[in-house]
Amino acid sequence: MNGKFITFEGPEGSGKSTHIKLLKAYLEERGIEVVLTREPGGTPLGEEIRKILQHDHSEPPVPSAEVLLFLASRAQHVERLIRPALQQGKWVLCDRFADSTFAYQGYGRGFDMASLRAVNAFAVSGLQPDLTVLLDVTPQTSRERLAVRQASTATTPDRIEREAAAFHERVRNGFLALAKEEPDRIVVINTEREPAAVAAAVRAAVESLTLKSPTHPPPGGGCSGSRQ
Amino acid sequence: MNGKFITFEGPEGSGKSTHIKLLKAYLEERGIEVVLTREPGGTPLGEEIRKILQHDHSEPPVPSAEVLLFLASRAQHVERLIRPALQQGKWVLCDRFADSTFAYQGYGRGFDMASLRAVNAFAVSGLQPDLTVLLDVTPQTSRERLAVRQASTATTPDRIEREAAAFHERVRNGFLALAKEEPDRIVVINTEREPAAVAAAVRAAVESLTLKSPTHPPPGGGCSGSRQ
Repeated sequence: MNGKFITFEGPEGSGKSTHIKLLKAYLEERGIEVVLTREPGGTPLGEEIRKILQHDHSEPPVPSAEVLLFLASRAQHVERLIRPALQQGKWVLCDRFADSTFAYQGYGRGFDMASLRAVNAFAVSGLQPDLTVLLDVTPQTSRERLAVRQASTATTPDRIEREAAAFHERVRNGFLALAKEEPDRIVVINTEREPAAVAAAVRAAVESLTLKSPTHPPPGGGCSGSRQ
Repeated sequence: MNGKFITFEGPEGSGKSTHIKLLKAYLEERGIEVVLTREPGGTPLGEEIRKILQHDHSEPPVPSAEVLLFLASRAQHVERLIRPALQQGKWVLCDRFADSTFAYQGYGRGFDMASLRAVNAFAVSGLQPDLTVLLDVTPQTSRERLAVRQASTATTPDRIEREAAAFHERVRNGFLALAKEEPDRIVVINTEREPAAVAAAVRAAVESLTLKSPTHPPPGGGCSGSRQ
């Protein structure tokens, strides 16, 4: 597997979709083939599941069914899109992945973390991100950004966006706790500043990943230092 | 919880839908309120998931996604239908439940049984059938019955029914292995005989369940002997 798997995580309104696109453009300028995808979704099956999860439904899923639907979508995503792309040497940038399950369903909804990790392990069968960019934002700023977005696009908040403020506070703190547990994988980036500064911080995190574990062996240097 | 939870399991063509209806009628004649349901399905969300699982789709689920979709449907089913009915004192008869996951995905598709049990435990959060009626049939008879059914109803086999013969052999042997592990819960009934004899065997299994653990305390006898 030669590609790199980079996930973007963070609360709503943290700028994930903006910064993932900026990183894609930056990598492509450097000749890297990039696949941009998102969870839930990313495959035809995943998009159907996404519809059930994000829009009001005749019958909303109970919390455990919600978790299992997210993970069904993830299993499909990993096997049909992410792993094949990595095997072809492409870099995969994914908007949300396992850390969202742990933050939203574990810290947010109170599911037991060990059970969540067991069910997630079943879905991903060994795949871990090489780097996770955690875009951090306070719940207050997140709310303000969502209000602006909804006013400008005339969209209405989906089911998860309408959750109570306490829930979003727990989710944000959950993301930060996950980053503390895995500081080598998860890089926390404060997004309450100029977008250009945030984009530079994202690029720096990605550069340091490349230095840590080169995707391609250094010219003339064989495989030493590469753990791929 | 005063009701009884009885599941019907077995390969395709074992007569589950016939015998579950006969048992329903038998119990209702005796004044018991019965809820008849099935997996995958049983709730509006479950029926949508059932459509994805059983019919040809633009993109079939990968095996791990299939398991997780079945279990999402089960989680909804348990929380929205089965547990509430049992709490109201109703008897729930369910066409397929967790043993189908273990037989089809474990024995049939080769998923690790411990992982399957962990994911199933997440979905059912403690609910176990009081009795499981395993309707046994050889793959040969199963194929013949399905051919007759398809000819008479002009339906075509669904994705699971079209699996190879070796798969169905593993599934049948898996059901029998599960029954050996839990002989107190799972009663094996040979269906290669007159339907009336099979129905009598199903009733006998249910009667013995009632004797083991009465749903209502015996008249004038208080609670002794009841473990409900």
